[in-house]
Amino acid sequence: MTAPGAPRIDLNADLGEGFGVWRLGDDDALLEVVSSANVACGFHAGDPVTMRRVCTAAVAAGVAIGAQVSYRDLAGFGRRFVDVAPGELAADVLYQLAALDGVARACAGRVAYVKPHGALYNAVVHHAAQARAVVEAVTDYDPGLTVLGLPGSLLLRAAVDAGLPTVAEGFADRGYAPDGTLVPRGSEGALVHDPAAVAERAVRMATEGTVVAVDDSPVRVEVGSVCVHGDTPGAVDLARSVRTALQAAGLRVGPFTG
Amino acid sequence: MTAPGAPRIDLNADLGEGFGVWRLGDDDALLEVVSSANVACGFHAGDPVTMRRVCTAAVAAGVAIGAQVSYRDLAGFGRRFVDVAPGELAADVLYQLAALDGVARACAGRVAYVKPHGALYNAVVHHAAQARAVVEAVTDYDPGLTVLGLPGSLLLRAAVDAGLPTVAEGFADRGYAPDGTLVPRGSEGALVHDPAAVAERAVRMATEGTVVAVDDSPVRVEVGSVCVHGDTPGAVDLARSVRTALQAAGLRVGPFTG
Amino acid sequence: MTAPGAPRIDLNADLGEGFGVWRLGDDDALLEVVSSANVACGFHAGDPVTMRRVCTAAVAAGVAIGAQVSYRDLAGFGRRFVDVAPGELAADVLYQLAALDGVARACAGRVAYVKPHGALYNAVVHHAAQARAVVEAVTDYDPGLTVLGLPGSLLLRAAVDAGLPTVAEGFADRGYAPDGTLVPRGSEGALVHDPAAVAERAVRMATEGTVVAVDDSPVRVEVGSVCVHGDTPGAVDLARSVRTALQAAGLRVGPFTG
Amino acid sequence: MTAPGAPRIDLNADLGEGFGVWRLGDDDALLEVVSSANVACGFHAGDPVTMRRVCTAAVAAGVAIGAQVSYRDLAGFGRRFVDVAPGELAADVLYQLAALDGVARACAGRVAYVKPHGALYNAVVHHAAQARAVVEAVTDYDPGLTVLGLPGSLLLRAAVDAGLPTVAEGFADRGYAPDGTLVPRGSEGALVHDPAAVAERAVRMATEGTVVAVDDSPVRVEVGSVCVHGDTPGAVDLARSVRTALQAAGLRVGPFTG
Repeated sequence: MTAPGAPRIDLNADLGEGFGVWRLGDDDALLEVVSSANVACGFHAGDPVTMRRVCTAAVAAGVAIGAQVSYRDLAGFGRRFVDVAPGELAADVLYQLAALDGVARACAGRVAYVKPHGALYNAVVHHAAQARAVVEAVTDYDPGLTVLGLPGSLLLRAAVDAGLPTVAEGFADRGYAPDGTLVPRGSEGALVHDPAAVAERAVRMATEGTVVAVDDSPVRVEVGSVCVHGDTPGAVDLARSVRTALQAAGLRVGPFTG
Repeated sequence: MTAPGAPRIDLNADLGEGFGVWRLGDDDALLEVVSSANVACGFHAGDPVTMRRVCTAAVAAGVAIGAQVSYRDLAGFGRRFVDVAPGELAADVLYQLAALDGVARACAGRVAYVKPHGALYNAVVHHAAQARAVVEAVTDYDPGLTVLGLPGSLLLRAAVDAGLPTVAEGFADRGYAPDGTLVPRGSEGALVHDPAAVAERAVRMATEGTVVAVDDSPVRVEVGSVCVHGDTPGAVDLARSVRTALQAAGLRVGPFTG
Repeated sequence: MTAPGAPRIDLNADLGEGFGVWRLGDDDALLEVVSSANVACGFHAGDPVTMRRVCTAAVAAGVAIGAQVSYRDLAGFGRRFVDVAPGELAADVLYQLAALDGVARACAGRVAYVKPHGALYNAVVHHAAQARAVVEAVTDYDPGLTVLGLPGSLLLRAAVDAGLPTVAEGFADRGYAPDGTLVPRGSEGALVHDPAAVAERAVRMATEGTVVAVDDSPVRVEVGSVCVHGDTPGAVDLARSVRTALQAAGLRVGPFTG
Repeated sequence: MTAPGAPRIDLNADLGEGFGVWRLGDDDALLEVVSSANVACGFHAGDPVTMRRVCTAAVAAGVAIGAQVSYRDLAGFGRRFVDVAPGELAADVLYQLAALDGVARACAGRVAYVKPHGALYNAVVHHAAQARAVVEAVTDYDPGLTVLGLPGSLLLRAAVDAGLPTVAEGFADRGYAPDGTLVPRGSEGALVHDPAAVAERAVRMATEGTVVAVDDSPVRVEVGSVCVHGDTPGAVDLARSVRTALQAAGLRVGPFTG
């Protein structure tokens, strides 16, 4: 589809976010779009059967598997900050990461990277102790694993300090402040709804490393991955159009790992 | 304590069976007695912090780590039969095994064997589909792992069929029927209370491969490990006396693995 | 829609079977169809927010609220038999029933009846100790509550013995054996797929107290309620057609309580 | 033991904080000491069997039953702040309160008051939205229930605003700052260890409504209840000595309710 040697960009999305009888999002459709799957590990979603099914399908599709680690909070889907002590958080992350990696290896795959989920993702942008706890768990398990997170976050800084590979990600459908941070949800300009605009922003992030901020100024966002969503039919269509636009711009969509 | 080259017997016990703030049994005392620790993996007991603490201590004590896998049943401590489909059980076992192994490796150890817990232990004596599911999970994760179970159980047969190493265990404080099965709890003769008798039975199992049944007939129980308990102060004392008796009989207490 | 004084039949369905972020079935659509809502109480599904939302909507729609009590098994959606001791089951049922009733009362409603869910529903057809445990919990909480279950089940017999009101239910989309039991799922004739046939069977159950068995013989099934499902769009349409057919036959669809 | 008509003081402690096979604290010993039992409701501890056992024993001992409501956090024993939305917290509290009240009524008792547990207790001292959520749940369930909490907390203020009865409690074994707040755990003077001093402080709180702060100044703490602990053998002894001292000072130890 794209020329060999073309510059590469990763597309990542959350997968396997069901639990037991419940499903969330269209995993099969997303696996045709993304190059990296953030797979839930059982603490906010993701029972072992779901994990195995998603890992099997990801391996078949050539999609990289990441551990989407979370606070222990099934009832809240990991979307609520929990003031867990760093030692407990490190153990919780290690447990989730190891469990998913074991399931992935039983499916002839492996975990290639770690991305925190939900409230933990937001916390480790600025919560130093929790950021270090996540990094400690990854280091303890396998210092060859990549940490995927927000550019400028304490998580990525702690990962760099610990010698872990890191990849920063961008959000093509989110508004950016002139300082490169995301406009908070609920504020004006937080979300970009126009599919053409979202696709165009993804291309510009991937090719130029910039995005147009809410005040129309260009902002540098050097990212190795673009995050898309798949929890609504419209979201999957949007993700598809992002992929198509990236390829039309001469980029190769592929995992940052391998 | 014993001569090099002495015949070896393993002593195993359940460890790490707390959860969060709750503790059960005296892990530290048991680690001075046993050579193999069946560590709870989170489904009937065993939060990640507890798992890490027990693995760290087991590694320091030179005690082998086993995955004590269970039905998903914190409220019932895994003591209630759950009619879970084999595919779900296999995924649940794989998840627990992988999680504990990851925690153990982060503590410079590793899981060496798998032993089902509680109601699952009892079920896989005769429940073919669940026995095969446990074996399938172990095989998928690492076919070099040993399966520890009841002599004559379908679990051990399925493990042998799958080419897994197996070790059979005996219970020095339980009564045996003439056919080599355990006298059911609640029946007369189910439990041996006298500490001297318990120690003597352990020695005879380990040296001669026999035990005296409830009808006073000798029964063959060829075991590579003797199971002891530690959930009461008296139980720990009993375990200590078993270890002492085994050593006094010229046996070396050590893990069946390595 | 139907004449005052017309004979009455109840239509019941499972509602509120989501958990946290996850949804299952179309509660709003079902509330326009049924007269009794079996509301999940948190053990197989049904977090407190979902319970409150469903109770509020049921009260607004004039639909009776029932406690759909279950084994404690979120991961298995209560569909797996659990060999729980009767004393524990009674406490679990009491807990769920009381929790839902409190939520319902805070919404100006109340629990009017109890119906076991999934594997517990199937178990109490023949498992005497678990059937008595459910009845004991209902009696302890409020002996004025109705027990809804399968005709001929040990559950209904135990409820009658305890002096509780009972209502038997029929399944218009399930095949019946000549002895009045349901054809097991997976066997030929277990399910009736033709919507017209399902509606016709519902009417005959409600008006004549009979159903045509798989061998074409008529069987007596005297029921006070007909169970419909809503977990697929097709299921909701089918439920609607059952209601329409019952009303066309001159019946009034309304709760058996009150 | 004390004269009829003697001024009364309540002693409260946390009970029923086990889960499944796990126990915490000595419920039986505490029931001989306290007049009010804060019973765990299942979210941080307290399975239905434990709840029923504690309620039965409390009723037999003439001890008032309170609902010790918590964040949903078994793994963390409710000791970790969770940033749960107020609407979800209100539903969670309502669920717990109703469940315990149903269990208590099945034991011929009833819930008389509500006291938040652990991190929720600390949060509602200053977190207005969570404080109002707790009060809303109590009001929705039964506006006759008393709220027990820290003097000056937003919880008690919100309860007063909602027209609920309130009781403030003191901690005889905790250091107080001159402004009447507790010295934070970990700071110097946070804990009072001397049993005689603890008993003396309890008496002074109960009779004079004052306590000596860490700077030796007297501080007003008008309390209707004194909180004691029972999770260690020493704690139970301390609780006993507090009770003895209060009675020796001419007070009658009894529930603030009824």
